[in-house]
Amino acid sequence: MLERPRPSLGVCYYPEQWPEEQWEGDFGDMHDAGIRFVRIGEFAWSRLEPDPGAYQFDWMKRVLDLANAKGLSIVLGTPSATPPKWLVEQMPDMLAVDAQGRQRKSGSRRHYCFSHSGYRNECARIIQKLAEEFGAHPAVAAWQTDNEYGCHDTVLSYSNAALIAFRTWLRLKYKTIAALNKRWGNAFWSLEYREFDEVDLPNLTVTEPNPSHQLDFRRFSSDQVMAFNRVQTDIIRRWSPGRPILHNFMGSSLDFDHFSLARDLDIAGWDSYPLGFLSRLPVSAQHKTRYLRAGDPDFCAFHHDLYRGCCRGRWWIMEQQPGPVNWAQYNPAPHAGMVRLWSLEAFAHGAEVVSYFRWRQALFAQEQMHAGLNRPDGTPDMGLSEVRQVATELEQLSSIKLEQAPAALIFDYEAAWTLEIQPHTEEYVYLGVALSFYRALRRIGLNVDVIPQESSLDGYKLIVIPSLPILDPDLVKRLKDFGGEILIAPRTCSKTEDFQIPSNLPPGPLQQLIPIKVQRVESLPSFAPERLTWKSSGYEVGLWFEHVETEIEPFIALPSGEGVAFRKGTYTYLAALPSQELLDAIVAELADEAQLETVQLPKGVRTRRCRDVQFFFNYNPEPATLHLPARTEFLLGSREMPVAGVTVVRTTGANR
Amino acid sequence: MLERPRPSLGVCYYPEQWPEEQWEGDFGDMHDAGIRFVRIGEFAWSRLEPDPGAYQFDWMKRVLDLANAKGLSIVLGTPSATPPKWLVEQMPDMLAVDAQGRQRKSGSRRHYCFSHSGYRNECARIIQKLAEEFGAHPAVAAWQTDNEYGCHDTVLSYSNAALIAFRTWLRLKYKTIAALNKRWGNAFWSLEYREFDEVDLPNLTVTEPNPSHQLDFRRFSSDQVMAFNRVQTDIIRRWSPGRPILHNFMGSSLDFDHFSLARDLDIAGWDSYPLGFLSRLPVSAQHKTRYLRAGDPDFCAFHHDLYRGCCRGRWWIMEQQPGPVNWAQYNPAPHAGMVRLWSLEAFAHGAEVVSYFRWRQALFAQEQMHAGLNRPDGTPDMGLSEVRQVATELEQLSSIKLEQAPAALIFDYEAAWTLEIQPHTEEYVYLGVALSFYRALRRIGLNVDVIPQESSLDGYKLIVIPSLPILDPDLVKRLKDFGGEILIAPRTCSKTEDFQIPSNLPPGPLQQLIPIKVQRVESLPSFAPERLTWKSSGYEVGLWFEHVETEIEPFIALPSGEGVAFRKGTYTYLAALPSQELLDAIVAELADEAQLETVQLPKGVRTRRCRDVQFFFNYNPEPATLHLPARTEFLLGSREMPVAGVTVVRTTGANR
Amino acid sequence: MLERPRPSLGVCYYPEQWPEEQWEGDFGDMHDAGIRFVRIGEFAWSRLEPDPGAYQFDWMKRVLDLANAKGLSIVLGTPSATPPKWLVEQMPDMLAVDAQGRQRKSGSRRHYCFSHSGYRNECARIIQKLAEEFGAHPAVAAWQTDNEYGCHDTVLSYSNAALIAFRTWLRLKYKTIAALNKRWGNAFWSLEYREFDEVDLPNLTVTEPNPSHQLDFRRFSSDQVMAFNRVQTDIIRRWSPGRPILHNFMGSSLDFDHFSLARDLDIAGWDSYPLGFLSRLPVSAQHKTRYLRAGDPDFCAFHHDLYRGCCRGRWWIMEQQPGPVNWAQYNPAPHAGMVRLWSLEAFAHGAEVVSYFRWRQALFAQEQMHAGLNRPDGTPDMGLSEVRQVATELEQLSSIKLEQAPAALIFDYEAAWTLEIQPHTEEYVYLGVALSFYRALRRIGLNVDVIPQESSLDGYKLIVIPSLPILDPDLVKRLKDFGGEILIAPRTCSKTEDFQIPSNLPPGPLQQLIPIKVQRVESLPSFAPERLTWKSSGYEVGLWFEHVETEIEPFIALPSGEGVAFRKGTYTYLAALPSQELLDAIVAELADEAQLETVQLPKGVRTRRCRDVQFFFNYNPEPATLHLPARTEFLLGSREMPVAGVTVVRTTGANR
Repeated sequence: MLERPRPSLGVCYYPEQWPEEQWEGDFGDMHDAGIRFVRIGEFAWSRLEPDPGAYQFDWMKRVLDLANAKGLSIVLGTPSATPPKWLVEQMPDMLAVDAQGRQRKSGSRRHYCFSHSGYRNECARIIQKLAEEFGAHPAVAAWQTDNEYGCHDTVLSYSNAALIAFRTWLRLKYKTIAALNKRWGNAFWSLEYREFDEVDLPNLTVTEPNPSHQLDFRRFSSDQVMAFNRVQTDIIRRWSPGRPILHNFMGSSLDFDHFSLARDLDIAGWDSYPLGFLSRLPVSAQHKTRYLRAGDPDFCAFHHDLYRGCCRGRWWIMEQQPGPVNWAQYNPAPHAGMVRLWSLEAFAHGAEVVSYFRWRQALFAQEQMHAGLNRPDGTPDMGLSEVRQVATELEQLSSIKLEQAPAALIFDYEAAWTLEIQPHTEEYVYLGVALSFYRALRRIGLNVDVIPQESSLDGYKLIVIPSLPILDPDLVKRLKDFGGEILIAPRTCSKTEDFQIPSNLPPGPLQQLIPIKVQRVESLPSFAPERLTWKSSGYEVGLWFEHVETEIEPFIALPSGEGVAFRKGTYTYLAALPSQELLDAIVAELADEAQLETVQLPKGVRTRRCRDVQFFFNYNPEPATLHLPARTEFLLGSREMPVAGVTVVRTTGANR
Repeated sequence: MLERPRPSLGVCYYPEQWPEEQWEGDFGDMHDAGIRFVRIGEFAWSRLEPDPGAYQFDWMKRVLDLANAKGLSIVLGTPSATPPKWLVEQMPDMLAVDAQGRQRKSGSRRHYCFSHSGYRNECARIIQKLAEEFGAHPAVAAWQTDNEYGCHDTVLSYSNAALIAFRTWLRLKYKTIAALNKRWGNAFWSLEYREFDEVDLPNLTVTEPNPSHQLDFRRFSSDQVMAFNRVQTDIIRRWSPGRPILHNFMGSSLDFDHFSLARDLDIAGWDSYPLGFLSRLPVSAQHKTRYLRAGDPDFCAFHHDLYRGCCRGRWWIMEQQPGPVNWAQYNPAPHAGMVRLWSLEAFAHGAEVVSYFRWRQALFAQEQMHAGLNRPDGTPDMGLSEVRQVATELEQLSSIKLEQAPAALIFDYEAAWTLEIQPHTEEYVYLGVALSFYRALRRIGLNVDVIPQESSLDGYKLIVIPSLPILDPDLVKRLKDFGGEILIAPRTCSKTEDFQIPSNLPPGPLQQLIPIKVQRVESLPSFAPERLTWKSSGYEVGLWFEHVETEIEPFIALPSGEGVAFRKGTYTYLAALPSQELLDAIVAELADEAQLETVQLPKGVRTRRCRDVQFFFNYNPEPATLHLPARTEFLLGSREMPVAGVTVVRTTGANR
Repeated sequence: MLERPRPSLGVCYYPEQWPEEQWEGDFGDMHDAGIRFVRIGEFAWSRLEPDPGAYQFDWMKRVLDLANAKGLSIVLGTPSATPPKWLVEQMPDMLAVDAQGRQRKSGSRRHYCFSHSGYRNECARIIQKLAEEFGAHPAVAAWQTDNEYGCHDTVLSYSNAALIAFRTWLRLKYKTIAALNKRWGNAFWSLEYREFDEVDLPNLTVTEPNPSHQLDFRRFSSDQVMAFNRVQTDIIRRWSPGRPILHNFMGSSLDFDHFSLARDLDIAGWDSYPLGFLSRLPVSAQHKTRYLRAGDPDFCAFHHDLYRGCCRGRWWIMEQQPGPVNWAQYNPAPHAGMVRLWSLEAFAHGAEVVSYFRWRQALFAQEQMHAGLNRPDGTPDMGLSEVRQVATELEQLSSIKLEQAPAALIFDYEAAWTLEIQPHTEEYVYLGVALSFYRALRRIGLNVDVIPQESSLDGYKLIVIPSLPILDPDLVKRLKDFGGEILIAPRTCSKTEDFQIPSNLPPGPLQQLIPIKVQRVESLPSFAPERLTWKSSGYEVGLWFEHVETEIEPFIALPSGEGVAFRKGTYTYLAALPSQELLDAIVAELADEAQLETVQLPKGVRTRRCRDVQFFFNYNPEPATLHLPARTEFLLGSREMPVAGVTVVRTTGANR
């Protein structure tokens, strides 16, 4: 059984893409740079089994032996993300079908349907062979299942395999078709079925399908990812016991439930590409320009805090952007120093390993424009020197210790599906709302845990709940018993488990906590926000507005007197979506109420505390100055933060 | 035979969606609120016939009996808009195919192809059963066929059933393939056919198909809707004689000819969703913001005046928006009072019934976010109190009488298809042009009739003709004989019946009325309008410009001297599309010429005269003040109009 | 054998679309207007062969005889762009399939797959019949193959015919599947094939297919156009010897290699629609407004210079826009005089013939809104009088002589495909980059030759190379030996022939000329350019930035010191994409270095020298004034240029 490792560095490597003569030198150079983990194999099926059943594992053994000799630990990837062409020829119906009814073709990756049992069996076969062969190899320290489940919109498949599996899933869930008809509300529009085999997949309908139908299909599709992964973890645990299993989740990917999948893992990995992610965020061109070479200051931290909550605190960055990438709409280079900043920030958030993608930029194929730690000609790229610096600094910072955060944000994948199925306005995007709440906490310097609905709330002083339509009944109980402040976004508790409106109107059972009833909701275009004044400052709310019946006096209201925020005891309910500035002000007020210690940070600077050590990160395209006590002990950096600067201080009683 | 009812209120109700115990109470509450008509049944096929041939009509009988007992009249809907799944399983090729060649699936509504004879027969079967069973029931006051023909882009189907029917339609129209080749101009691009069975549907071509081909497909598709509806009306008239038949047309839906379909109806119904419609109009964000909670001030009135012209004056609002809806891009709530305003405006335009959609908001399925008169928990929503007020006010206003308007706008569905097939610039949208002309008439307080080409022009003093490419030869005659002013938009008479250019150039036969010949046309992007000065004011024209050969001196011209508007006698021809401001000025001038009495209205206020009574409606988001004579008699409201205010005055000789 | 004709005028004519009685009059009127060439027949298949094998050539013979009698020369078009419906019924799989997998239908034009051998045979059959019949007719002066290959995105087809042909093409190119796997880099993502029959067409993949796969498919598709055309030219050369063969290329169409196809032609024709093309260019609304009625001042000239380089100097405008057209997003009319300006500019660039599309505007079908020289009613349209003027002026300008330009721009179709396959940012568009370099040369009054990679560089003083990823090794040699100035855009030499990164990094072999190595590249959004100062002026660079390792001091740099432009000897390398203003300044500097004589031109005025004659063209929407020596001899026009003005002067020693 692997001990939980000290913070460490890793890298992704593709021996099959380089001449064998280079392997030993590469491994030596990696170790020399301070790297200890190497991920290999996840795209190598056509090399491990060039023809059906004709396994060629000898080269892989040489790789593992070499790694072992060089003191490197291997994370071995299962190759299921890239089935070779001969397999697709054998079972062409393993290909996924998109929402437009088009069968996807091979020629890139992830060209399989999660529901296809023939393909699951083929994966089981090759993985068992690999695990039998290498499961006990001394170099093999961990396993990665597949690669970035769901990347390239691959969770939802409308294939025949998916249709058959969906009907089975429904049969198991509802037992009788009458139950399904009732819980979906199929009396509406004559949608009633006589048997499960009449249910279709919810695509290509004339107008929107029943939202209950859609939500069940989203739940089913998420479950299929889990079942697909379980086949792999069962085999690996049997044939390679004691090696932790991880998966590398893709950032900002919400199409299946990462919390649920992580229950079958030992470590949550995620792939961090800050610049590419920023290009895709629905934020202003001004924001994208300011953080062009740094990434959004809260996006990565949000994901760090999310994946830390997935596997009892064990998490890695499996792929860290090492320079400019190739896949975004535009692909800028990070500021000098940003690779170091991103790495140190990950460790400050508790990462065990930060692993870079990839060791050396490829000369060919789809990702040839994706930078590596080394250039395609073998010379070190800029990232590598920053990695060396991180390796050195990690030694100095051996004392990073984690502690529970004072604030928690409840995050929920089903909420994302629910709001995507029924947005009411296209501009209402769950991840954006959640990030906005997270940002408000971070701007006052709070550590945050991102937790699922079923988490214990013990120990927290402030809970924020971005729009969470379907609330677990048990969470309602825990919220009742919770002593700290709770900030609840609009749309929370607005749906039952079956995607119906609660019979006592929203916020359903939350009315037990705060006596408000949503009488009417409306969505507004972003060009027509409502303006209000609170504590002498002007603010905006928009996109969403709830008209509330209550005897509580609103503590924020429109000029008309209509309430925007209501408060009773420790419960604060927002009846509209505040602009970031207003949300910042509300969260700051609640943090005060909760007697949380906050920090005044320069714009674009973020912080993270690890017991007696505090990190500061400068995301700005210009230097920043920290306001710290005169006798601060600096472990790294100083008050004057350059672009991409990291300052680490020892906290004393005074500023703790 | 039902007498033409007094102005009255109605509501849409879905007994199949609520426990039977609630029915009686609901009916009682409806009657209590002043409601007299209840529409039911139009989506209930799966409840009326859960298995093929296994009719279950007893529950419907109980509903009708209860309604009768409560003094309510029922509008019974035929259930053809939502075929149950078992029917689709029986004949999967009844599903429509979209322009991309994808067969649409069941799971929502309107999933049928109008041309499928098997489905028509199934509809005939169930409707005949219903009509036999309930046609003479005392509660059944009227019938509605299907629901919103054409909604969700369902008129055009590219299925095999449509292909076969289209070829038959062409054979009937052209007799010989040589005639078709000649009238379509198939010498162009080698498009000549040897037989009718070589003609395809005009989709998936490499570049645009022949416009004559497209126009005939649009005409065919419109005819298919008519034929589909005729099957239903024939049965109903036979088995339920004396009950008027209506259909609920969807606002801003132009894919089939509503005038033609209405010839088979007794009453034209339309579904009025002012806020959702505004979100879809091609107008500025500023306009959308100003009228966010009121709707465009002319959009509903335009439709009222349109449907009043469909069935000899008999028209209803079948579905009136009662609060925020769910289906638009964003879904704001109306101002308090707007439901009343919309209702009274409909009555001022001659509605017999205003019926609200729906009695109670659903707890489940696709429209759960669509407000009703009651909330999903059964409590009255805001709309209900406004409905009660309308019921009371209707008593006071019993004297609403209709009269022919002084001005008429000629509206034409084929014109919409023609301009959609050959827009010349994507920004040229027929409904937008027509609305612009209508708005100019309304802004000076004129009553308007919206009439089809074949209407008599007798009694009008001003006729406006928004772009009408294909003019009925008989209309040319009537325009010649007409004594009043005529305003003709560009592109009028620019095509023959076969979608060819008139051999004497546009405006073809109109040259008999006003001696101008269009030598050249051009379309301009909206970002490059032409500027001009007329009567010392600066204006713009754009999108479309015609270079005209004529001996007439233009009365509006570009700085270059090139004419924009020409006038001979009572004929005024526009050679360019004027901005709204210029069009307002032109229309005002013609109204003066026609000696029409106009009104100076505050911006955003509209009026409608009903003989000796005059209504004023405030669409603004702020109060408005009417300038009325000192001794005006107010029936409702006053000079000072609040937001959503309605003022009704008795007109005397002075301001009549 | 036809002598190279004197500059002359032509027109496109469709006798099949007009009554035979009109033909003689039309031909007479053409000759009277100064027209000598008439293109016919390219869309007439259904008239030449109304039923399979039932040829009807007699009408065509009457057309040719009449033309001959009137002194007109005929360009006879092969009818392969519009296969008649009976042929599609015979072999439905001849239809192309688009990237979405949808088979295209007949009903417009170009509805065939270039790879379908059955269709090629049918084309061979009809063309041989035509050539046998009319190849020696005295009126037939030249042939046109097909019409606008590639128009409407028709080069790439994903049909089964294309799949089979692609596999054969790959087999011929790579011999073994191992070679293909290696050169495509299929070790990546398990993409290795076991045999050629496993290779798919690169569409409908989950994420992007291998760029090497895509590039080979683009090369294959281009080759298929060539092979398709070769079938036609082989037949025509055999049966109609001595008649030159041309094809009418469509402007801004880059999907197949026009240089390669032109090798099988005698004359390159292109179709010039300046206003429609401008509406599609990725330029600002301001630019589109300014040149709304003139077209981009450099777009046509660029194409003139391009097609002059295709067939050893022999080129025509086959279709010249004569007025407003019908197919662009919006369709303005040209300024009065623009048709003359466009025509004279084409002759100044060496056109042998300018031929107008079309003689008379059609009354029917898809192009009824496309102006002709005559209106649909037979009256002369504005263009015709300008054509008459051009005919007269051509007499005066008989001395137009061509000479090699001092500057050359290397243009490459494969570069377009490469940058389209891997843009790195969507905003990086090859044609836009090339046009920007061309514009900079033209703004200082230089004549330019647009040449392919394999052209000799002898005689030039300045070579510009817009982004050219894959450089022919032989061109590297010629660049080494070249004595003049060379300006190299970023991304040049960034790929090997196999779409891999050069093993010595970009710019690969160009490092032999200028010692720089691109260490890192990044793409930037257009909203975040970098700003810099050069020679006291402020400029921008953007979209693309290369970080370069070199010992050369940059001569233009960012404020950070990072180099933007490097120069060694006569080689100048741009490491970023300059704004037009900066590029203008750089090109002007290099022109000075090369001791080229430049001209100070008013904005929007362009010039072209023909030995001792110099043309000036005013593209502005307002008059312009030329600064010319006092005793300039004016052949046409004067110093004061009206809108659409053309001035021609005799150059003396002084201003030569």
